[in-house]
Amino acid sequence: MLHELFSPSVQHALDLAGIFVFAISGALLAVRKNFDVFGIAVLAEVTALGGGLFRDLIIGAVPPAAFTDLGYFVMPLVATALVFFLHPEVERIQLGVNVFDAAGLGLFCVTGTIKAYEYGLSLTSSAVLGLATAVGGGVLRDVLANEIPSLVRWDRDLYAVPAMVGATMVALCIQWDVLNTATGALAVVTAFSLRLLALRFHWRAPRAWNRRSSTAEEA
Amino acid sequence: MLHELFSPSVQHALDLAGIFVFAISGALLAVRKNFDVFGIAVLAEVTALGGGLFRDLIIGAVPPAAFTDLGYFVMPLVATALVFFLHPEVERIQLGVNVFDAAGLGLFCVTGTIKAYEYGLSLTSSAVLGLATAVGGGVLRDVLANEIPSLVRWDRDLYAVPAMVGATMVALCIQWDVLNTATGALAVVTAFSLRLLALRFHWRAPRAWNRRSSTAEEA
Amino acid sequence: MLHELFSPSVQHALDLAGIFVFAISGALLAVRKNFDVFGIAVLAEVTALGGGLFRDLIIGAVPPAAFTDLGYFVMPLVATALVFFLHPEVERIQLGVNVFDAAGLGLFCVTGTIKAYEYGLSLTSSAVLGLATAVGGGVLRDVLANEIPSLVRWDRDLYAVPAMVGATMVALCIQWDVLNTATGALAVVTAFSLRLLALRFHWRAPRAWNRRSSTAEEA
Repeated sequence: MLHELFSPSVQHALDLAGIFVFAISGALLAVRKNFDVFGIAVLAEVTALGGGLFRDLIIGAVPPAAFTDLGYFVMPLVATALVFFLHPEVERIQLGVNVFDAAGLGLFCVTGTIKAYEYGLSLTSSAVLGLATAVGGGVLRDVLANEIPSLVRWDRDLYAVPAMVGATMVALCIQWDVLNTATGALAVVTAFSLRLLALRFHWRAPRAWNRRSSTAEEA
Repeated sequence: MLHELFSPSVQHALDLAGIFVFAISGALLAVRKNFDVFGIAVLAEVTALGGGLFRDLIIGAVPPAAFTDLGYFVMPLVATALVFFLHPEVERIQLGVNVFDAAGLGLFCVTGTIKAYEYGLSLTSSAVLGLATAVGGGVLRDVLANEIPSLVRWDRDLYAVPAMVGATMVALCIQWDVLNTATGALAVVTAFSLRLLALRFHWRAPRAWNRRSSTAEEA
Repeated sequence: MLHELFSPSVQHALDLAGIFVFAISGALLAVRKNFDVFGIAVLAEVTALGGGLFRDLIIGAVPPAAFTDLGYFVMPLVATALVFFLHPEVERIQLGVNVFDAAGLGLFCVTGTIKAYEYGLSLTSSAVLGLATAVGGGVLRDVLANEIPSLVRWDRDLYAVPAMVGATMVALCIQWDVLNTATGALAVVTAFSLRLLALRFHWRAPRAWNRRSSTAEEA
């Protein structure tokens, strides 16, 4: 069975890890925006579960995993407690957060693509939905925080591309019938590494042509 | 049958009342933001129906009640007309709006939890979804009005906690098999009263620890 | 069969055309907001597919057409490429964009209403959902761009009313059992023409009564 690309318990542990690190990023933004403790919890939950929720609604997997697995719901609350009491320390380990977030991105783009394919979507649609799973939570986080999603801002390091590469690799593996633990893990690691490289070398995507040298309408 | 906690006609009347008062709050925000009459109607509909719509999508109850019961759709239009012609009077009775809104909050967290449980969610997930039903419309209202959701702002009186308490009471009643009209009504009244007390005494939730005495990044 | 109001291939071509012009409007806003190339693609996709996605989730048509028809997904990428390389030219032909966007509005309010009715919604609900199909993508576009949706702003020319008229015409045709290619096309053309007239003569909707002569809280 495709979904058991990784053993179920490993898969579940990785899912929880991905949820946890995404929740940390949501909670930290909430602290920066001066939200109260419930606001921190809301943003942590939305960031961690939003992408998967969107995917599950699209493929008709209702109720979504976020509402059937208690661990998925509790993990962001743990992240909230951690950030609430320790946030200066957490911010200091921003590097660590970035690394974990990159790991979540790599994992979610792969598992999202596989789950979508199992629910009968075409390979292209599955890869697109895998990408949406990986980046959706962050977009919802930024919308709730009343900011332009960092996904679409030109002055942020590449985020979509690593997930796109990972999702595409999985789709190609399915196409060629070579998806297994090794190739799946390779896709995760590739997306993860590309994101880290983008952060390290500040890789950015171009803006529309004539914009590049002009002054921006807004920063 | 659980959902007939209250008699169907009473339940329906209470639903419409909750929808109406939530719609008023959406319409008033639209007037303050200087929206045109369609904008007022859109914000009234979204505020009143958004929470239930989200719940119904999650539990797979499609088409959602908002699209099968004409009254659910018409009620916000009535609220729109009222606010459109009378809004200074409506604002003057802000106290009344707050009271009705608190009643809607109490009712929706209870009926939302029950409906989610009937669709097979666990007790914890049902309570979470009951909470989301009660607060979801307000979040969508604020997102469309391009504001930070008042749900997550530290400088607003407690809103989530009363709904959380009401939803939890219902879940515990189901767990202990003592959910009936009396205990259901008690949960509604408890959530309702807590919200009124929060408004009266300006109860607020704490922000993250070291933030409390620091200047905020933004108000 | 109702949905084959137009022949399938004509219907599909019209759908793609509507998606394309909506995508252009999303991509242009993204350029104005200084998004990078992925941001342009995201906004193009969301604007073009958001309304139909919402409709399909509501009526339970999962996975939504946007994820089963590759052309629906590719069209916004074509629009993105066009805007990316040629955007000053595209902006210069803003009139053309407005005309195409009006055509998309007219078409989507009609096909959205028909599809909703086929999935068992009442006539009123179908018309409401047809309206939501036509305007939903634009609302999501503005939310992601962190702006107040132009749908609800008083200082924009009428947008909802033409779609409302078109959707209502279709609902009445179904009611009176006179829906056919001619009457369906008439509804499309009516909505289309009303939107063009609104643009030409700057028709606007009123704001709440006492607001009309007062200074606005915000522009």
